[in-house]
Amino acid sequence: MVDYDFTHRIRVRFVETDAMGIVHHSNYLAYFEESRVEYLRHVGHPFTEWRDEGLESPVLESYIRYRQPLHFDDLIDVRLRLAAVTRTTFQMAYLVTVDDADGTAGVRATGVTVHGCVTTDGRPTRLPGWLVELGGTTPG
Amino acid sequence: MVDYDFTHRIRVRFVETDAMGIVHHSNYLAYFEESRVEYLRHVGHPFTEWRDEGLESPVLESYIRYRQPLHFDDLIDVRLRLAAVTRTTFQMAYLVTVDDADGTAGVRATGVTVHGCVTTDGRPTRLPGWLVELGGTTPG
Amino acid sequence: MVDYDFTHRIRVRFVETDAMGIVHHSNYLAYFEESRVEYLRHVGHPFTEWRDEGLESPVLESYIRYRQPLHFDDLIDVRLRLAAVTRTTFQMAYLVTVDDADGTAGVRATGVTVHGCVTTDGRPTRLPGWLVELGGTTPG
Amino acid sequence: MVDYDFTHRIRVRFVETDAMGIVHHSNYLAYFEESRVEYLRHVGHPFTEWRDEGLESPVLESYIRYRQPLHFDDLIDVRLRLAAVTRTTFQMAYLVTVDDADGTAGVRATGVTVHGCVTTDGRPTRLPGWLVELGGTTPG
Repeated sequence: MVDYDFTHRIRVRFVETDAMGIVHHSNYLAYFEESRVEYLRHVGHPFTEWRDEGLESPVLESYIRYRQPLHFDDLIDVRLRLAAVTRTTFQMAYLVTVDDADGTAGVRATGVTVHGCVTTDGRPTRLPGWLVELGGTTPG
Repeated sequence: MVDYDFTHRIRVRFVETDAMGIVHHSNYLAYFEESRVEYLRHVGHPFTEWRDEGLESPVLESYIRYRQPLHFDDLIDVRLRLAAVTRTTFQMAYLVTVDDADGTAGVRATGVTVHGCVTTDGRPTRLPGWLVELGGTTPG
Repeated sequence: MVDYDFTHRIRVRFVETDAMGIVHHSNYLAYFEESRVEYLRHVGHPFTEWRDEGLESPVLESYIRYRQPLHFDDLIDVRLRLAAVTRTTFQMAYLVTVDDADGTAGVRATGVTVHGCVTTDGRPTRLPGWLVELGGTTPG
Repeated sequence: MVDYDFTHRIRVRFVETDAMGIVHHSNYLAYFEESRVEYLRHVGHPFTEWRDEGLESPVLESYIRYRQPLHFDDLIDVRLRLAAVTRTTFQMAYLVTVDDADGTAGVRATGVTVHGCVTTDGRPTRLPGWLVELGGTTPG
């Protein structure tokens, strides 16, 4: 877990569970997104800054591997890493864990999202320079 | 049930259930909204027309009375009625039923939403004339 | 605002916004629920305890008055109050605010939810004694 | 598109849009799920039958490639195919299209989900025989 850049903690909401008694698989994308937003704030470029500059960051691809279910009220840690950056796309990798009874972080899911950059009228454009640079200095 | 103007049928999705094994109470507002959209299409003024004319219809109030739970895969009928119209707001009333084994419509919920009208930059404005007129001819 | 028992802070997620650029009105019920869960933890009776004792707390009614829209990344404060308790139902009242630029709490919404108590197989039952007692000592 | 086994049509709800004015990327998993449920009904083994037999079908992996955005009120066609079946897992492939102005199906997204089979108390078990058989006769 040393490879991740940032960790964000989220409490599972009841609304996120389904009739199997576990978190519905679609909610992981919301957890990833919330964590990404906090990561961007952490590196000094909050997502609201993007929007003020007329940029959006649409999701181009998403992949999730669900390993163990999440349950209501679980306190989950989403670790994330800026995994690959080109001039027009960036990739984020995620690890979702919950602390088990013995204090070790039990893996619940892993995932990847790929993002582009568009102007608010939808035309693809280059990533902000600071993000390309940040990608260049990422060990991953 | 004679008082309702329109009925829209919706199949409950698995994602809409929660760990109590029933439909989460927040999803009823999405059912009402979907039904409202179909009703507006039915009366010849689809919601996309509103948006083309630079109008939005924000929700000002919502009320729901949950009587019997809804379950995954239920086929629900949302009856709705334009209940009260002023020059700046309109009210919709809803009745949610599921056909019981004997073929009678079993009541699951009732609800009301109140809507305003704003321009796309957020300023309150009058309702479209056709809607005020439609309200005037509503028995409710 | 002195009348509220508890305040819970939530950051608005991007997934909770809609194409009007504001928080979709159905998400307020999730905010209320999350705050209720934290309140119950705060008074020493976490919702997981209810579930361990074979109890559920279904929502019987919900009411929301939307006053000003919420936006992505807003830091919202949900104040809540145990408003009325009978032997079989309890009511919670909510006030949603966002700190405005001048530091004052700007009202965004108010709401009420009414809850019952059922055993996990769905039969209505009395509220736990501590909750009836808590209601008795509430100024509201 | 000849390779797909089944098509299910869904109307995009307003609640599914986000502040970028497009469908939030997490909702595609709900569209896939709704389509899967209708496919299983179509082949004579509705998901409710699984549940009656004490079986659940958790999602083990999901992958989505978002090609063109979906918008409010779009009428989307989800084509799906049973893509790979082992004794304990099955894979479904999806193609999401919207009919363009000229009547051709414009591709919006592709996706894959991988599913296991567990008993309602969470223990992994073999897939139902009919599903393994169905997989065997699939060209994919």
